[in-house]
Amino acid sequence: MPEPLRLGIAGLGTVGGGVIKIVQKHAEMLATRSGRIVEVTAVSARDRSKDRGVDLSAYAWEDDARALASRSDVDVVVEMIGGSEGLALDLVKAALENGKHVVTANKALLAHHGFALAAIAEEKGVSLCYEAAVAGGIPVIKALREGAAGNGINAVYGILNGTCNYMMTAMRETGKDFDVILKEAQDAGYAEADPSFDIDGIDAAHKLCLLSAIAFGVKPDFDNLQVQGIRKITATDIQFAEEFGCRIKLLGIARKSEEGLLQVLEPCMVPISNPVGVIEDVYNAVYFDGDAVETVLLTGKGAGEGPTASAVMSDVIDIARGISLPTFGVPANKLETAEWMNLEDSRSNYYLRLNVIDQAGVMANIAAILRDCEISIESMSQQGRDPGAIVSIVLTTHEVRHGDILKACEMIASLNEVKDEPCLMRLETLE
Amino acid sequence: MPEPLRLGIAGLGTVGGGVIKIVQKHAEMLATRSGRIVEVTAVSARDRSKDRGVDLSAYAWEDDARALASRSDVDVVVEMIGGSEGLALDLVKAALENGKHVVTANKALLAHHGFALAAIAEEKGVSLCYEAAVAGGIPVIKALREGAAGNGINAVYGILNGTCNYMMTAMRETGKDFDVILKEAQDAGYAEADPSFDIDGIDAAHKLCLLSAIAFGVKPDFDNLQVQGIRKITATDIQFAEEFGCRIKLLGIARKSEEGLLQVLEPCMVPISNPVGVIEDVYNAVYFDGDAVETVLLTGKGAGEGPTASAVMSDVIDIARGISLPTFGVPANKLETAEWMNLEDSRSNYYLRLNVIDQAGVMANIAAILRDCEISIESMSQQGRDPGAIVSIVLTTHEVRHGDILKACEMIASLNEVKDEPCLMRLETLE
Repeated sequence: MPEPLRLGIAGLGTVGGGVIKIVQKHAEMLATRSGRIVEVTAVSARDRSKDRGVDLSAYAWEDDARALASRSDVDVVVEMIGGSEGLALDLVKAALENGKHVVTANKALLAHHGFALAAIAEEKGVSLCYEAAVAGGIPVIKALREGAAGNGINAVYGILNGTCNYMMTAMRETGKDFDVILKEAQDAGYAEADPSFDIDGIDAAHKLCLLSAIAFGVKPDFDNLQVQGIRKITATDIQFAEEFGCRIKLLGIARKSEEGLLQVLEPCMVPISNPVGVIEDVYNAVYFDGDAVETVLLTGKGAGEGPTASAVMSDVIDIARGISLPTFGVPANKLETAEWMNLEDSRSNYYLRLNVIDQAGVMANIAAILRDCEISIESMSQQGRDPGAIVSIVLTTHEVRHGDILKACEMIASLNEVKDEPCLMRLETLE
Repeated sequence: MPEPLRLGIAGLGTVGGGVIKIVQKHAEMLATRSGRIVEVTAVSARDRSKDRGVDLSAYAWEDDARALASRSDVDVVVEMIGGSEGLALDLVKAALENGKHVVTANKALLAHHGFALAAIAEEKGVSLCYEAAVAGGIPVIKALREGAAGNGINAVYGILNGTCNYMMTAMRETGKDFDVILKEAQDAGYAEADPSFDIDGIDAAHKLCLLSAIAFGVKPDFDNLQVQGIRKITATDIQFAEEFGCRIKLLGIARKSEEGLLQVLEPCMVPISNPVGVIEDVYNAVYFDGDAVETVLLTGKGAGEGPTASAVMSDVIDIARGISLPTFGVPANKLETAEWMNLEDSRSNYYLRLNVIDQAGVMANIAAILRDCEISIESMSQQGRDPGAIVSIVLTTHEVRHGDILKACEMIASLNEVKDEPCLMRLETLE
């Protein structure tokens, strides 16, 4: 049997602890499956005295995680610190430069520095692995980078943030509005005290970047990803979605079309007749469309100790088995700089809700604007008839240009009869 | 760049042709992703003159597929012949013995000879790959053998035969009975002229064997797999399933419990509240439960030219990338001989339908038998009240021992008032 594979773990939070538990519990199984012993030799975290429910006494301790990168008894640095800059970046860079493999769950780091880090990994002949960075325990990186490697990828769609999906499921089930559900989610520990990383879509957008890179062979490009979170979703829209046979999902879309490559993350209406539309609660999903395989859906828990540690261990075992892959599926020097299409030029069906004062002529004014902007209406309805009161007009469109409907929205919003901001959402059929 | 990877393809049916199309269409992409050129050098099929819609002129032709195993210009033999014995077995064995990698979609071959072939592959240091053998284009072998490698696997469930799933979906949607739908499926090309391999569950059982082997680190063991197909499913049972919030699925179950390892393939009632319950038409699904990752579902098309060729190419690219894995996830000499639990000792909830003559005392007689066999009833109902006519009594049980309910069924079937064979089905909650 070859030499043991020795892990240095930086960050002993939920996931770091979960990784140690698996290594301890399944030592024999891991050795059999990997063909070599997998062991932890050194760990690092901020607070040495904290009880983490795992026995760390056999491992060397480093107060400064960076030191793991130069220990001679570490083959793989497992980076569980988080954050796109600072300690995590220093550690990963130093580890790769010192010829150590890196396993990380850090989507922010890779979304911002993935290309540069992949280049170092390749130069040094080591692996930079991140199955745990996207959709937790679901092996989506493996499915896309290896399982679908014989396909030209047409599109990847993802429900990539469990907190958002949980909140929107709760809003639908209870009819409660966003702020109420957010408060409840925070109290229950499903949402952070500062929830913006989740609910503003940043976390999911980091993940989408990595999926886009693999799907299209491009450098991860977070700066060119238009992101919209779920703060503006109302219970009313969730209810209307039901009426259209849809649910609202914070959806990452990476898609190739005749007009070019599109990368966008925003709340979308998704039909429940599509398997992605019924992914609820904290579940994540990745759905991709390849030119040979057609559509494949993977779903499971996208976060939590066990699922995320499972993904980390799958990378560790790959390394132990001698499996080495280019970070984003092609050699770093072959990764192209994506030319994303202008979001305004993307085409989709849309859902549009307007709050208007119920008075004569309002429908006519709106319809005229839509006609002038070349927006072809599929259905339009006004709920309630209470002259002078504020009512919702809800419409869906045929496939139209995003820029055209944005312009129409702007014009409509400036009408006197229209109150509040119009709510515009893609009606995404995933086709 | 290293030397090209050279394929010899045996069998030029739908899938073999699909593989050639991908190699021709995506030559550049495959080279970039694999780090080396992937090319076909030789092919073999029964009929050389047949037009297959692909240009074969650049490839050497072998009338006897076995010759591919000894060609010096072939690194990988792609076996698309099928069948567990004869030509396919000869070819795969010879190829491995000659130090060539093998990629196959042949579940029958591996279910029967997987252990012996894996041992040869390991001895010769080559890969024996079969992603295409289970669930077509869905990367389930990769997900289980690599993605979940850090998990002790509790259970794997699979909808593994598209023909059966299509037929049961059609029965549900049309209310038509089995024979009618089978005829229609045959006319439409969804079922073979001799459909027994599909509808008697053999095909799905071969696949389940391979999943069991990976999940539990045991030798594929087709001889100890109890198989029941879908011939006995009636439109009536499908309708009752609806009433219980279930659908009938031909389900492969490989599960570890306190009583031991269970491996069984049979029609089950699956709640539509479980994501497996709503997998319809020709779609396949694999759902597994790991001790860290919890549950993961993968779904997509389980057959057809593109999906199956995609899976073949994923194995080919793995080989081109230098990825080598033990065939069933652990070295062949570490594969254990499974000690399957006696199916009679397995426990489950059950659905039982009885056709009885509607006369006084029949319910009492049945209930008495169930009580004596220690079958705890969850619900029991008799549809229709037409004294003297034949009516259905439908009941569901709490979790009971399989052997006990089998015994009860036998006793009930011997009652004079009971007509036809009782229909007994697991009510499988996948937990």
